[in-house]
Amino acid sequence: MKEHPDAQYYIRGIELPETEVSTDLEPWGETRVVGKPLPRVDGYERVSGTAVYPADLTLPGMLYGAILRCPHPHAMVTAVDVRRAAAMPGVRAALTAFTPLDRATRPHADMIRTQLFDPHCRFQGEAVAAVAAETAYQARDALRAIQVQYEERPFLADERKALEPGAPQVRDSGNQAGETQVYQRGDVARGFAEADVVLDQEYRNECEIHTPMELHGCVARWDGDRLTLWESTQGVYNVQMQVAATLGMPFSLVRVVGHYMGGGFGSKLQTSKYSVVAALLAKTTARPVKLVLTREETLLAVGNRPASNMRLKAGVKRDGTITAMQFWGSGASGSEPAGGVSLLDWPVRDTYTCANVRTELTDLLINAGPARPFRAPGHPQGAWALEQMMDALAEAIGMDPVALRVRNVPTVSQARGNVPYTSTGLRQCLEQGAAAFGWDAVRAEIARQGNRGTVKRGVGVAAGLWVAGGGGPPSTAVVKIFADGSVNLNMGASDIGTGTKTVMAMVVAEELGVAPDAVEIEHADTGSTQFATGSGGSKTVPTESPAVRAAAVDVKRQLLELAAEELKVEVSTLTLRDGKVVSTQDPAVTRSLTELQGLRRRRSLTGVGYRGPNPANKAVTPFAAQFCEVEVDTASGEVRVVRFVAAHDSGRVMNQLTYQNQVFGGITMGIGFGLTEERVLDVDQTGKMANLNWHDYKLPTMLDVPADMTCVPIDPKDTECNATGAKGIGEPATIPTAAAIGNAIYHATGVRVTHTPVDPLRLVAALAERGEG
Amino acid sequence: MKEHPDAQYYIRGIELPETEVSTDLEPWGETRVVGKPLPRVDGYERVSGTAVYPADLTLPGMLYGAILRCPHPHAMVTAVDVRRAAAMPGVRAALTAFTPLDRATRPHADMIRTQLFDPHCRFQGEAVAAVAAETAYQARDALRAIQVQYEERPFLADERKALEPGAPQVRDSGNQAGETQVYQRGDVARGFAEADVVLDQEYRNECEIHTPMELHGCVARWDGDRLTLWESTQGVYNVQMQVAATLGMPFSLVRVVGHYMGGGFGSKLQTSKYSVVAALLAKTTARPVKLVLTREETLLAVGNRPASNMRLKAGVKRDGTITAMQFWGSGASGSEPAGGVSLLDWPVRDTYTCANVRTELTDLLINAGPARPFRAPGHPQGAWALEQMMDALAEAIGMDPVALRVRNVPTVSQARGNVPYTSTGLRQCLEQGAAAFGWDAVRAEIARQGNRGTVKRGVGVAAGLWVAGGGGPPSTAVVKIFADGSVNLNMGASDIGTGTKTVMAMVVAEELGVAPDAVEIEHADTGSTQFATGSGGSKTVPTESPAVRAAAVDVKRQLLELAAEELKVEVSTLTLRDGKVVSTQDPAVTRSLTELQGLRRRRSLTGVGYRGPNPANKAVTPFAAQFCEVEVDTASGEVRVVRFVAAHDSGRVMNQLTYQNQVFGGITMGIGFGLTEERVLDVDQTGKMANLNWHDYKLPTMLDVPADMTCVPIDPKDTECNATGAKGIGEPATIPTAAAIGNAIYHATGVRVTHTPVDPLRLVAALAERGEG
Repeated sequence: MKEHPDAQYYIRGIELPETEVSTDLEPWGETRVVGKPLPRVDGYERVSGTAVYPADLTLPGMLYGAILRCPHPHAMVTAVDVRRAAAMPGVRAALTAFTPLDRATRPHADMIRTQLFDPHCRFQGEAVAAVAAETAYQARDALRAIQVQYEERPFLADERKALEPGAPQVRDSGNQAGETQVYQRGDVARGFAEADVVLDQEYRNECEIHTPMELHGCVARWDGDRLTLWESTQGVYNVQMQVAATLGMPFSLVRVVGHYMGGGFGSKLQTSKYSVVAALLAKTTARPVKLVLTREETLLAVGNRPASNMRLKAGVKRDGTITAMQFWGSGASGSEPAGGVSLLDWPVRDTYTCANVRTELTDLLINAGPARPFRAPGHPQGAWALEQMMDALAEAIGMDPVALRVRNVPTVSQARGNVPYTSTGLRQCLEQGAAAFGWDAVRAEIARQGNRGTVKRGVGVAAGLWVAGGGGPPSTAVVKIFADGSVNLNMGASDIGTGTKTVMAMVVAEELGVAPDAVEIEHADTGSTQFATGSGGSKTVPTESPAVRAAAVDVKRQLLELAAEELKVEVSTLTLRDGKVVSTQDPAVTRSLTELQGLRRRRSLTGVGYRGPNPANKAVTPFAAQFCEVEVDTASGEVRVVRFVAAHDSGRVMNQLTYQNQVFGGITMGIGFGLTEERVLDVDQTGKMANLNWHDYKLPTMLDVPADMTCVPIDPKDTECNATGAKGIGEPATIPTAAAIGNAIYHATGVRVTHTPVDPLRLVAALAERGEG
Repeated sequence: MKEHPDAQYYIRGIELPETEVSTDLEPWGETRVVGKPLPRVDGYERVSGTAVYPADLTLPGMLYGAILRCPHPHAMVTAVDVRRAAAMPGVRAALTAFTPLDRATRPHADMIRTQLFDPHCRFQGEAVAAVAAETAYQARDALRAIQVQYEERPFLADERKALEPGAPQVRDSGNQAGETQVYQRGDVARGFAEADVVLDQEYRNECEIHTPMELHGCVARWDGDRLTLWESTQGVYNVQMQVAATLGMPFSLVRVVGHYMGGGFGSKLQTSKYSVVAALLAKTTARPVKLVLTREETLLAVGNRPASNMRLKAGVKRDGTITAMQFWGSGASGSEPAGGVSLLDWPVRDTYTCANVRTELTDLLINAGPARPFRAPGHPQGAWALEQMMDALAEAIGMDPVALRVRNVPTVSQARGNVPYTSTGLRQCLEQGAAAFGWDAVRAEIARQGNRGTVKRGVGVAAGLWVAGGGGPPSTAVVKIFADGSVNLNMGASDIGTGTKTVMAMVVAEELGVAPDAVEIEHADTGSTQFATGSGGSKTVPTESPAVRAAAVDVKRQLLELAAEELKVEVSTLTLRDGKVVSTQDPAVTRSLTELQGLRRRRSLTGVGYRGPNPANKAVTPFAAQFCEVEVDTASGEVRVVRFVAAHDSGRVMNQLTYQNQVFGGITMGIGFGLTEERVLDVDQTGKMANLNWHDYKLPTMLDVPADMTCVPIDPKDTECNATGAKGIGEPATIPTAAAIGNAIYHATGVRVTHTPVDPLRLVAALAERGEG
């Protein structure tokens, strides 16, 4: 599908646009609600099963859609015969590029035949046809009855061979997606010349797949020329704009609702073909259609963090000065350009002070499913290289790994032309994290014990930053207060499981002096809520909370003006607390909101808030340092993660509980990235994915996660980043995790495994190579 | 149930409150969209069956509720035994005042036992118990199995006997609801003395019942402590406030959604017990509950236009000067005070110039279902008296009935202390209506023909005004424009079948220069939309359209500011047309909304609009004159309405089609009021209603409505009434109808039947009395 220019609103680069709407909000002083550990406002719905996720939705007369997908990594479809399938019980529609279209679908013939069901299938899992039937089982049965003639083509499944002569060509334009991107500052040759130690190391990460618990899917319904999609998405407006553009509809007539979603991690930021397929099936059958992908489809077709190949050369002086870093990175977007190496070099470019840096990124194409932004795109991979290199450099110059990092904490964003950070808590993360972890003591103890048994103990540290902190405009929120002082918040952002709704209820409660549970929230519905960019990139809270705060402040202003008139006092002497207007000067002057005649008369007040602009000439960046302890069974190659301490400067902690949950979730995901998760392609024989299910694609489970995890929030009191002071916690929480584990494994075993996931086979092989196994 | 002070926002009196929010909007000049005959924006949904009315809603696990109602007009419930019912298949809950409550309902024990299921049942149809079961049939079966012991009491079914000594007492406080209300201006005794002719006549209207096509009902669902009600209501905020107050909840936690409704006519402005019953049944079963009343229940328990007893004495000089009017009116609210005679005297007080007026209204109690506001409360009844009296006065002084009315057209509202009307189109209604009807010619023709056969032909005129024109604050609307120039409107008002959504889309389209069908509307949802008062009283369009316009103007302002900056021109030179920003000065300066970079950057703009205050010291009033022709079969007593011409000054015609539909609907309803509809109570024997279904309670059908109906809109170009110039058409359309028919019957037969409905029995009796039958 042709991408709508406005539909993609996620950071492939780093900049969020500015808007002209400014909001003049003073930074909060002491807060009464914000920062407290509040359970989720929608916790009951989520755990009781009453929350209606798109897959739970059942509409009268609803059909079930299913998509037939190409079983080959590279093939031309030359014929599709749906006659048997269409005649099967319950089958109501079959849609392909090779069969006649009806009045409902004919206007989209070109899009269907050249984009949606492009006969040139470049990856296993590409869409070939779709059906709608009365039951999900009938739909699946019908798929099996569709007869497709494929002409198989040579395939390329390993991006490391993409540029070899004679490699199968993924696209006519070749196997590289665009030019190699080069970043440079200073002079790396001179920098390496100044170094006392220069190390040069290759690293690789295997491809990781989002595969969130909740499958991708949607329900599509038409009312005349209006389309409603209930979709599991991180950004209802992204889906609205993309689907509208694809179907040639005004945005206003495409309503996308995403009230609950069960995980996306970036794979649900964009719009996939299934949403358009569901819309077309619903249109052609004049019935609502539910289309939920299978687990296999989510593993194949809707996104991954591509494998990365990295080489990092770094020089350091004996005093810990990093003199130069040179980085080469490559990866594969899949079968079309999709930012496969996006931000892979950012950790090298910006984490530590270094005058001479050069990076090169090469994005390649292979016959495999598409890359999508995946929690901190590029960063865990880049950190995997950088943070192990820092460990090695520290060892080489005989300096403590924490000390080397602290020595090089930056206060300006070198990658952005040395603009200052609004706050830099990296030093505190490292120091307070180390203190909480007992870094020195445990290292001394391990050194004393000598680590002689089969099970070896080690600790590791890694730091990180996230490119896009502090959020950014545009965002609009509306707050409405009822005559009894209870409140409704209207915002477009999705709560993708991170507690966004809870945090926003707290922001409203903070400003209006009401209880957070009297704040009801309407969200993530292009028909009924305000505009928000997709929830992702750690920018949801920093983007939305200032808009929500501004809307609440607008209501507060109106309330206080009404009250000042009734109480016959200056409006500047009034504020809101505990459901009352109170005077900051005279305790006798007070009025309950329910007694405020102006509010009763108006029945409700509506406030609108906009996300103000980001600070000019400053960088807003969250920082992190994570510490872990592992036990490595050198006989089996198993790594047990014993504990984690995660110190984060993500600006203000809006809600202690959800903040901590994000951190623990990020660590869990990092454990998967570092130790267990890998897309296994049969690169030589068939090009197909070999572990196409959750049995063989190993997500970390509770048994892989340490019971002992500690969150150490560092609040830098950042009053510049935005009007609430939050910088974003989602991505940073997972950036250093794998690298910290890698460093701990090295500390335990003396073996550096540079290739994730560090599974038992890989670790045992590495130990054997070093004679440690 | 105790009424929440804010929940009732309908005019029992006449004043709407003012707010401080002013909107400075210039009156429209020539309009491009407003005023055109646009089909309804939701027409497809309504006719295709895809519109989901509350009764169409099916939620997973939903139960069906039903209410047991007292079969007696007056009884004490002394015991309720639900054991047999509760043991029946599928029954999940039984709720009474006599059975133990559980944890979910116990907090409401007092309300349930003394209000919801008050053992003192004062009308047939009062709620006694409720059940919830897996199917609607099981619920109805269970009701029949509930054993109730009633102690019957003497009943009062005829309000004309309410104040007789020894009459059964409806309440301990007696059978009158409050004091008799007296209005007086001038000196009627002196006025009558000045008259050349004084007539004195009694009139009566039988009780009419709303019984809208769509039954009353709702679906209730709890999510933890949050309640959602999908309700067929004219005002979602009314229901929200009343239910929240009854259940002791914050307003924000009661979400009321009323996206479609199929007629209410006033009976769905307030909140009935069934909504609370559904909420309690859902709470006690922890399941969603659908509770839709039966047709019998809508006839008994949810509202009526009570019978009215009127006496009007009027004096006139030979020159047509009306010297005095004295009016006595009574009616019955039902078994508790409910404004049963509300506004009954308003036509007498305000329609014609008269210096000396005295009215007395007495509201009585009987053992019958409650009065509710019914399309133009009091007015068709008052007009039934006044307009027949005008006819009789004209005849008495030998003046044409139209001429007498024109002679007495007021320009000030005498009932409001002689404040001027913002516009008075009554004269034009009479004159242009008469012209369109061919009044003089047809009267002359009938006179010439002599009307000698059995079927006699006659024509009649009646005029009217409606007390509460022009709407009023508060109302808030939000308009959101998307990056492609399509638009979303958010408003709290219900579209009760009158085309409100269509009119509001036109208002937005007018201001923003976009197509009305690109305006998507979110409405009537306390969770997602802005505050609006209930839709009723002809005030929906006049109240909401200025707020909607103000919101669109706010968006327009923002758009033009962005455009002025990009185009580097003065903002005052720009306007919007056909999806483009255009210069009013230079045709070369133009930019499509989709090319406006500021809009692309912001992704959407949000505008908020408030309903401004009503004009100070002015009255806003819609006027009407209707003309009809009838054929009276003096043998059978049947009246055939042959044609109607309706001339209305309701201010600006916002949409020709929906305006005309309102007028034709009003006439249809007026025909029912005048000719067919009557609640028949068995006043002597049982006190029960004898025509408890649509077979015996006769609504007019297509066969009763003339094919020849003409709408003559009079636009007075009222720029003072509010920012859109609309005064309201819903009520005025039905006010003069019955009286015009009554006058036509008199013209045809020489017999004045003063008692509605003028059904064949009543007409034959009257003709016989005059020797005409």
